Parts: sequence; C-alpha cells; structure tokens
Amino acid sequence: MDRAHAASLDAADPLARFRDAFVLPEGVIYLDGNSLGPLPRAAAERSERAVREEWGRGLITSWNAAGWIEAPQRLGGKLARLIGAKPSEVVVADSTSVNLFKLAAGALSLQPGRRTLIVESGNFPTDVYVLEGVCALAGATLKVLPPDEVVAAVDQDTAAVILTHVNYKTARRWDMAGVTAAVQAKGALMLWDLCHTAGAVACDLNGVGADLAVGCSYKYLNGGPGAPAFLFVAERHQAQIRSPLSGWMGHAAPFAFEERYRPSGDIRGMLCGTPPILGLSALEAGLDLQLEADPALVEAKGQSLCRLFIDLVESRCAAHGLVLTGPREMAQRGLHVSFAHPDGYAIVQALIARGVMGDFRDPDIARFGFSPLYLSHADVWDAVEILREVLETRAYEAQEYRTRSAVT
Amino acid sequence: MDRAHAASLDAADPLARFRDAFVLPEGVIYLDGNSLGPLPRAAAERSERAVREEWGRGLITSWNAAGWIEAPQRLGGKLARLIGAKPSEVVVADSTSVNLFKLAAGALSLQPGRRTLIVESGNFPTDVYVLEGVCALAGATLKVLPPDEVVAAVDQDTAAVILTHVNYKTARRWDMAGVTAAVQAKGALMLWDLCHTAGAVACDLNGVGADLAVGCSYKYLNGGPGAPAFLFVAERHQAQIRSPLSGWMGHAAPFAFEERYRPSGDIRGMLCGTPPILGLSALEAGLDLQLEADPALVEAKGQSLCRLFIDLVESRCAAHGLVLTGPREMAQRGLHVSFAHPDGYAIVQALIARGVMGDFRDPDIARFGFSPLYLSHADVWDAVEILREVLETRAYEAQEYRTRSAVT
Repeated sequence: MDRAHAASLDAADPLARFRDAFVLPEGVIYLDGNSLGPLPRAAAERSERAVREEWGRGLITSWNAAGWIEAPQRLGGKLARLIGAKPSEVVVADSTSVNLFKLAAGALSLQPGRRTLIVESGNFPTDVYVLEGVCALAGATLKVLPPDEVVAAVDQDTAAVILTHVNYKTARRWDMAGVTAAVQAKGALMLWDLCHTAGAVACDLNGVGADLAVGCSYKYLNGGPGAPAFLFVAERHQAQIRSPLSGWMGHAAPFAFEERYRPSGDIRGMLCGTPPILGLSALEAGLDLQLEADPALVEAKGQSLCRLFIDLVESRCAAHGLVLTGPREMAQRGLHVSFAHPDGYAIVQALIARGVMGDFRDPDIARFGFSPLYLSHADVWDAVEILREVLETRAYEAQEYRTRSAVT
Repeated sequence: MDRAHAASLDAADPLARFRDAFVLPEGVIYLDGNSLGPLPRAAAERSERAVREEWGRGLITSWNAAGWIEAPQRLGGKLARLIGAKPSEVVVADSTSVNLFKLAAGALSLQPGRRTLIVESGNFPTDVYVLEGVCALAGATLKVLPPDEVVAAVDQDTAAVILTHVNYKTARRWDMAGVTAAVQAKGALMLWDLCHTAGAVACDLNGVGADLAVGCSYKYLNGGPGAPAFLFVAERHQAQIRSPLSGWMGHAAPFAFEERYRPSGDIRGMLCGTPPILGLSALEAGLDLQLEADPALVEAKGQSLCRLFIDLVESRCAAHGLVLTGPREMAQRGLHVSFAHPDGYAIVQALIARGVMGDFRDPDIARFGFSPLYLSHADVWDAVEILREVLETRAYEAQEYRTRSAVT
C-alpha cells in the first residue's frame, strides 16, 4: 500500500468534483467535519446576500419577500430528503438540545399513562442532560442504561426510547430498523438522534417507521458554527403531539395574535420563537450542496476513507499503541474513527499544529472524521504519514501540547 | 410647526452621527425598527469576518481562537450595561420564547410550594403561549389577568409574575420599580420581558431589584433577523435556579462529558445547546454600536421623535379618524406609537408602498417605531406628510393594499 494506491482510489471517485465547492485552507487536512463542517463557497455568498440584500435593503419586508418566514419548513423539506422523511415531517429550528426537549416531552404527551424515558449511557452527554431536565419538570422517570440493556428494559411504563444512531465517540451505529421495531413492539416510541448520521450514512426514517428524530446541521451538513438543528415528527403523530415550548411560531395562526395557544397541528407546531435567519441562510447553501450528491455514494466513499484510515494507522503506526475504539465492520459504524491512546490529547494537538485537524474526547480518544464531499484518499494517506511522524519522533511530548483549551 | 422646526431639532441632536453607521435604503423612512432594526454597517463586516475568516479559515479552532465559546457570556456582559445588570447576570442565547420558558420554569424551581404563574392579558402572545406550555408540563397553574388586576392577584401560591415592560401594541410602560416591589412584597418573583425596552428606554434591573428578565435583540439593538435573545438572572438566584433546558452548555464542565447533568451554578447554567455563532457575530456589532450612545440621550431623543409624531398626526391628519392607542405621557410609554383606524392594515400597506415602513397589528393598529440612533425629526415630518397624502387622497382604498401577507 502506497500513496499511489490512495491516488488511484481518488481517480475513480464520483464525488471528487465536490471538493472545489468548499473553502479548505492551504496546508490543512480537515478531519473534524464530524464536529464542524467547513465553509461551502456558496454559503459565504448566501450569507452575504442575506445580510446585505435581504436584511440591509429588504428590511422587514424580507419576512415575506425573501421567504424568511417559511425558512424553517423550506429547509426542513430539503433536509427530509436526506433522512428518509416527507417534506412535511421536518423543520429546522433551535438547537439539537432544545429540539430533543420538545420531542421527549412531546413523546410523553403522546403516551398517556407511560411516564418513563430510556436513554443509553455513553450517549452524547447533552442528550442525557436534556432528558434529565424533561423528566424533572414533567415528574417523569429517566432510566440511563448500558446500550445492550436498553431494548430489554422497555416496559409498559416506557413512553419513549432515545438513542443516538451513530455514537459520537465510538462511531458505533445502531440497527435502526431492528431497534425501532423492537421498541415499538412493546408500545414505546422511538426517538433517534441523527447528529452523526445526516449527510453521512444512510437513514430511512419512514422506511424503519421511526416516530421522532432530532439532529444537528453543522457537522456533515456543513451548516456553520451553531447552525440551527432539525427535528422530525412522523405524520401520524403530528395532530396529537404537544410541544412544551409552545411559542408563537407553533401557533395555528401566529399573526392573528390570539390570546391563547392553539397548536398548528402539523410540523409547524414544533416551532417556537422567531427563526434565526442568518444561521438558516448559510445552512441552506450547505443543504443545497448536499442534495446534489447521491447518498449511497456519500456513504460508500466515507466508508472507503474510514477503512483506508484504519488500515493505514494499524499497519504504518502499529508500534505506537493506538487502539481502535468501536466496531470495525463498516455497516456497524459511522464516518468518524476513534483511536484510544494514553497521550491522545497531546497527539491531537501535535497533529493540529501540523495541519491535520481532528479532535479529542475524554478520557483518551483521538477522533478523526471522514466527511465524503471534500476529503480524498490521498488526504488520508498524508494524514497518517504525519501521524506516524508525530508518533515516531514523539513530537507530542512537547509541553505546548499538554495545555487544555476551553473547547477540546 | 413646519419642516424647518423639525430640522432645527435635528441640528441640535447629539446622536446625529449614528445615522451613518446604518444601511438605510434610499427612499425609505424606516419606522419599523421596533420589529426589525436595520443593518449596522459594522454588522455586515463582522458577519463576513465570522463566515470567511473564522469559519472558513479558522474552522474548528475558532471555538477557542475566535472566542466563539465565550460569545454568549461576552455579549451578555455587553448587553448587561444597557439594562442595569452586572456582566455576570446576562447571557445571549436561543430565542426570547425559549428563554422565557427557562426562566418561568426556573422561577418555579426557586419557589417550592408556589405553583402559580401570573401574566397579563394583552401581552405579546408568545409570552402567554410559552407560559401555558411551562404550566402544562410542570403541572402548575397559569392565570392570565387584565393588567390592572395583576398585582392584586398575587398570593401565597404565586411563584412569579411575568410582565412585558413596554407593551408591543399600545407602548404602555409599566412602573418597573413599583410593580417589582409590590410583587416581591407578597413573596413572588418578578420576571420582566424587555423586548421593547433594551436599547430604547431606561432600564435598571438591579436598581429596581428585579429577579429575572428576558428580551430580544433584533429590535432596538439591531441584531439582525431572528438574532439570539438574552436573559437575566439576578446574582442572588443563580446558585439555586434550575433551567429545565439542561443542555451541555449549562453544565459546570461542558467538555468533561460527564454522564449526569451538574449545573454550572452561575449564569452559564441558563445556556442549553451549541451557540449560534453567525447570529451572535452580527449582533455583537449592533451591541458595540449601541454602547457608544448614552442611554439617557437615546431615550430622550426617542421621546422627542414620538412626541413630534403624535403632535403632527393629531394636528395635520386630524380629520381622518386616527386614534392614539396607549398613554400620551412619555414617562408611561415606550418608543413606538400606535394609532387605531378601521383601515389600519391598508393604510400601512399604502405607506410602505411610498417608502414609509411601519407595521400593522390586529385588529386595527397602525404601528410606527422611533428608534433613536438613525431617525431624524425631519424623517418624522416627511413620514407624516406622506401619511396625510395617503389619507387625503384615500390612496389606501386601492385593492392592492387589502391582501394580507403571511407576516404582517
């Protein structure tokens, strides 16, 4: 295996043309698109138009004339195509955490008599934190269980099970169809967190009959830092579900200024406050770009990049104690790869200093994301060579790589 | 009274220099800054830097290097100076609706044994809607009472009173000091909505001893469409209050990825999800600009513009049936002026077609905002002359002004 092999894979890459659609700084191999995707060139233009034309010239009239007021549904309709949903089942709004709060409480509203939510331990922490908040306010019970105990624990009091399809740390991917069916067979609702799924691996929410889902748009969808998140409510639940965050944008007639809340009865009922237009505008460019790519090709290329990375690290850095975390089988994982190492934090910092951007997750995980639209197999080769050099020279032992930043 | 009189007031305006800091389209007199403030020139530049430099070049490193992660607190600290708070008492995050949910539920957490929230009827609808949602989930009681019955209704079960300082429709301004004291004397907490206050009229939250507050930043603070909102928690409550929206950014150690939620115990405990950086960046430019202006001069000029508008409408358009809604006394009102008229909707549309942008509120209110940083007294004169022409020629009777848009 050599760099020419990697280059030959790139020569046959049907998604190669997408690389030019992104701003990728000189000298950087960006393996952190699973945390914050890079800037699509079109997003910079779209953002400037939103600011200078729509806000600057259009002022208040842009709520109608520039389509601002429909943006949460318009973007939701686009995003729906990436996750196997109908356009009328998805909106883009708020943060993932806020959307999870809405849907977890909404699940309780759909399941009178069932007062327990079940979540896996080892989930991305905010999921557990938010569910704690829902249960504390609603007087419901939260069970945090090891992943392999979740399905068996579902009982007559379980309103919903909340799982993250692809784990943020290990990249382990749940069997979405099997778990959804097993949970629903016991009368509970299935709520999927798609943060590491949308834009990365195949997802067919309606195909598996999922009830509810949330996810973020700043990772593989390249929506920008803190871009608005999305949520999905299956059509069959929309008339009954109640969002506790019953803000005016979820009202059946927001501009009638009625005294009491009257939910819209469709997916708009999950909206709350005034939509964040600047964030939505940049995101729309990222979504439009993503929709040009065949999802099957996206997943296949991402798996090819991950497989190459794992193979190269395990062969060319074999002596240095990096241990793969999570499954090896591509069908059971997402598009980031985590290696445990006692000096994981310092190794990641040394790599960043050399232009290879990954990130670190406590306690010892060096994490690398392989976003298919802008990375090449040659990038993977080059990144591993730099990793090898960092390990062989023990460059990561320098003091400068030991200081923790606020954000890791 | 003539245009020269208005011009003479402008000649003595100590805030006149601020007009050039905004993008104001040719031919527009913008009297809707109480709904969406215009674009500060610096915001366009700041926004582009956030997109092209910080996101485009800095990528994930900007969370630390560009200060993204501290943005909610940094902007909160700036905003605090406009509302009489300490920098450590304010954060910028989410929407006003979401923040109201946090603080209303937070008020219940601070008041064990008290299970009622009281809000005024005629408040901006989302406030009532959100409180309905809080109470439904928490099993608490919401009382919606006429404004003049609110204080008398506070009793031993009242956890908090929620009032909007300046009413969105009538511009009526509550006596913040007197009401806060009266509510607190009965053991309830006082939560102020400052949407039409911040950047417009004087506000001294700590001076009056307020407990909690929320507000938006896209009106008089010119933060951009759907800009992130703010919230205030008095220092004395920060260790005890619990946000139900317990997302990772409110955790004592967000990047330690602990399994269970542990609130930060300071104002960060009111944060939830990942901060919306593009919205925050544009807003910061608006805040920096606002902080250059003396708040006392801002309020005084706004009142001078409002007084002139009321006087001119009532003298020069006297025959046309416009009826002032809300108080006439400046100390009892905010910086927008509402006139009721049976053809209010069509009159507003006819004005917009002639470059005078106000807005309409059901059922019959033509509403005009007088944001002090970029409007002149000559603008007020010119706007009233155009209004007079619309009324005298009955131009508003044209069919084209009768069709309702999605957003009014």
